Amino acid sequence: MNGAQALVNTLKAAGIEVCFSNPGTSEMHLLEALDKTDIHCVLGLAEGVVSGAADGYARMAGKPAVTLLHLGPGFSNAMANIHNARRAHSPMLNIVGDHASYHLQYDAPLTSDVEGCAQPVSAWVKTSKKPDQLAQDVAEAIAVARQQPGKIATLIVPADVSWGETLHDLAAVPAASAAPLPSMLVVNDAAAVLKGDEPALILLGGAVDEKQLKVASAIAEHSGASLYCETFPSRIARGQGRGCIERLPYLPEMAADVLKDFKHIVLVGAQEPVAFFAYPHFQSVLLPEGCKVHRLADLSHAPGGALELLAEQLGVDQEKAKCYKGSPLALASGEFTPSAIAQSIGALLTENAIIVDEGITGGAEVFVTTENSPAHDWIIQGGGAIGWGLPAAVGAAVACPNRKVLALEGDGSGMYTNQALWTMARQNLDITVVIFANRNYAILQFEYLHAGAKDMGESAASQMSIGNPDIDYAGLAKAMGVSASKANTCEEFNAQFKAAMATRGPHLIEAIY
Amino acid sequence: MNGAQALVNTLKAAGIEVCFSNPGTSEMHLLEALDKTDIHCVLGLAEGVVSGAADGYARMAGKPAVTLLHLGPGFSNAMANIHNARRAHSPMLNIVGDHASYHLQYDAPLTSDVEGCAQPVSAWVKTSKKPDQLAQDVAEAIAVARQQPGKIATLIVPADVSWGETLHDLAAVPAASAAPLPSMLVVNDAAAVLKGDEPALILLGGAVDEKQLKVASAIAEHSGASLYCETFPSRIARGQGRGCIERLPYLPEMAADVLKDFKHIVLVGAQEPVAFFAYPHFQSVLLPEGCKVHRLADLSHAPGGALELLAEQLGVDQEKAKCYKGSPLALASGEFTPSAIAQSIGALLTENAIIVDEGITGGAEVFVTTENSPAHDWIIQGGGAIGWGLPAAVGAAVACPNRKVLALEGDGSGMYTNQALWTMARQNLDITVVIFANRNYAILQFEYLHAGAKDMGESAASQMSIGNPDIDYAGLAKAMGVSASKANTCEEFNAQFKAAMATRGPHLIEAIY
Repeated sequence: MNGAQALVNTLKAAGIEVCFSNPGTSEMHLLEALDKTDIHCVLGLAEGVVSGAADGYARMAGKPAVTLLHLGPGFSNAMANIHNARRAHSPMLNIVGDHASYHLQYDAPLTSDVEGCAQPVSAWVKTSKKPDQLAQDVAEAIAVARQQPGKIATLIVPADVSWGETLHDLAAVPAASAAPLPSMLVVNDAAAVLKGDEPALILLGGAVDEKQLKVASAIAEHSGASLYCETFPSRIARGQGRGCIERLPYLPEMAADVLKDFKHIVLVGAQEPVAFFAYPHFQSVLLPEGCKVHRLADLSHAPGGALELLAEQLGVDQEKAKCYKGSPLALASGEFTPSAIAQSIGALLTENAIIVDEGITGGAEVFVTTENSPAHDWIIQGGGAIGWGLPAAVGAAVACPNRKVLALEGDGSGMYTNQALWTMARQNLDITVVIFANRNYAILQFEYLHAGAKDMGESAASQMSIGNPDIDYAGLAKAMGVSASKANTCEEFNAQFKAAMATRGPHLIEAIY
Repeated sequence: MNGAQALVNTLKAAGIEVCFSNPGTSEMHLLEALDKTDIHCVLGLAEGVVSGAADGYARMAGKPAVTLLHLGPGFSNAMANIHNARRAHSPMLNIVGDHASYHLQYDAPLTSDVEGCAQPVSAWVKTSKKPDQLAQDVAEAIAVARQQPGKIATLIVPADVSWGETLHDLAAVPAASAAPLPSMLVVNDAAAVLKGDEPALILLGGAVDEKQLKVASAIAEHSGASLYCETFPSRIARGQGRGCIERLPYLPEMAADVLKDFKHIVLVGAQEPVAFFAYPHFQSVLLPEGCKVHRLADLSHAPGGALELLAEQLGVDQEKAKCYKGSPLALASGEFTPSAIAQSIGALLTENAIIVDEGITGGAEVFVTTENSPAHDWIIQGGGAIGWGLPAAVGAAVACPNRKVLALEGDGSGMYTNQALWTMARQNLDITVVIFANRNYAILQFEYLHAGAKDMGESAASQMSIGNPDIDYAGLAKAMGVSASKANTCEEFNAQFKAAMATRGPHLIEAIY
């Protein structure tokens, strides 16, 4: 048995089911070993697709996929979406091939500092040294990835370690230990705040499931506290029957305005709110002076369990949670705007859908217009490295083949990893993509002025517009095998979106407004 | 004046004419400052386009462009083509925005280790600390980029250093010092080898211009030595009237066979030949045992000047150089194969074209079939990080707006940075793209077996095929504003390629064989 087979044996025994890959020559023995198992290999035509898909998969499956990447350049192409995965605390296991160890001394053209590339975005990096150690090394990597919260583990496998013979054909991965509950001191501190008279905010972050949301909502109802989630939770349960929650705005001025009267903030899987970017005219810290921070649970704890303890301490009746129970919105008509698109999505969203949100400015309202849509889950790009949405939709659809995935995508952000469309077609994934086609980096046009740049001449404007020529997104999708349509009116969009919700398989709607 | 303006002043004064960009919020003041100059800003819709274009530009202009990138994720998306640029010794200046320095402590979502990302591919990395130092920092970066051979210099500019006020509004960049000539000891050593009776090879590498090629060819004629270039020279003059030269094969077995009888190798801007990848069954070092290596000039020297000294020492008559003087090939007909495509390209190539070569297996023969085509230049992807060709064609066309650029591109490699097509359209660049559409990663199918993997089941095969669905490259190009056609026969290809050579502007031919 060679090292590659021992590695793949260990993946398989640990329950890894999916490999997102973009291999090269140094990974040929790994492909051969994967070929002998039922691990599902999903090819991406660019590495950003591979890592974004692994993130989307991890968020929905709650466990890591493995990525297969080719040396430093292959890894670096994947890094932006690994950054997003790291910020979302997604478990991820990267297997990166390298030159044979003895070949490195010759500095052949593709020689690269693979460890150096991996360090900035990985919690754990190791180069395997011998075929006999490879099974153990990958077991260690899996264990790290599965820690609470999830981590990025990157194992570098020189080609001779893959092809060399070994008798160590398998290593066991220890079961992940359960995340600890917070101490009662911490729970009591939060309970005291919520019993008191001073205005308090409960802020949820990380992956917020239905149960957490319900308990948090019940606590908020019971105590009179406000309930918000971070601007970009990694995952959140939404829609009919799910707990009502507000979302902290992206703009620092607006977020600070939301926060200005609170004397206490109770953090549950969330960070202390700060501005996404710094601006010359506004502070980075968003909490008002004197607001006390109470960390009930960070992501190394079990936020759900922490909320249960808190509810118990407060004597909360969980059945009194405030949940969405209205009717879905009516279909939009009239002017075709992002608001109208958002409204119609709210009207037509199917039950149990997964919304993958990289809609940036265009898709911003959908979070609210789907409140009373049938129950569904959201995953959101929160790391700020754009080009995540289409790949993450691939991963979510691979993780949940029986659920409709709706990808909200900006026309700017969608271009970074448009190759994901091809993987949607090859795998026949049940994904509806809505492109918010405003022909601009609209967020940058806003940020330019917001950051205090004053004049916008032709040159600056040209770097924030993606028109001239307009991208034909429907044509792009068809060229990669995905059926597609263009919507220029509410009526067109409504008909196309309704059909997409009702039809299995990938479809892209280019919403041009 | 703010720091950004001081930075841009310094770029301008140093003669930087082009900025390839994909900016974000942290670079808004840099955009504003660029807007006030005539530095030509060229937007890429993904960062791999930006860095690949900067490489293509540098190879053809002989001087650096500047790239404008957004934090760690933006830089990492650009890294693969920066790797290629580094391997080609292209001068490159990367300006990477970062969060305001005081904002880093809050660990906002896009916070990233920008220096850590930059280190593996940069010769020089610095984070500018104050607006007052920014002009001086960028001057230093430019000086490093312009060293002989060219270097990758990466300057990280925190947003507050861009927007902060300064009186230091400009810094001068010292002129690059001329590359030194080798010592006469070294020249005499090489001359002695070439005067002797033992079989000798002259190996050229780096950027090989017309003059170098002629002198080297004359030396070879005079001495009876063989003349080869590296498998992947960063640039080489080719075609009618240019010195005849062979190219070292990619496959190590074939390269070793070429080299097996030489007792001496004289390196001129080239490295000692080694295998591109290691294989279980074949050695990394390609020179036969006992072959003596003579380093006439590495790339920190002036290879052209070194060859002149050598010619003088040997009493070479440069007019006796062996040059290509045949007629271009006839048009191909019959079966539509990569050989037929290569033949017709040889028949129809226009004078003074620039060939940008990432044709991988499909385009391999074009180097030979264009020997007797009108004089032209080649630039070749040699770093092994695929996804270089379309961006590099953008850069070459921006550098040389009055020359026809021919991009030879594999259908696999073309997908990594297909967004370059959009920039070709926006800038109306005079580029003809030929896609060698074999619907496979053909190089990997070969490498799989060559590396000793034995069986190829459905799973492994699926990771090396890019069919199912086939990519409609012509459709992809049209969706991004580039006119395009499909060729399934020699006759179709001949007509389309002839028209493309005769018509200014971007056109893509999908050659399906």
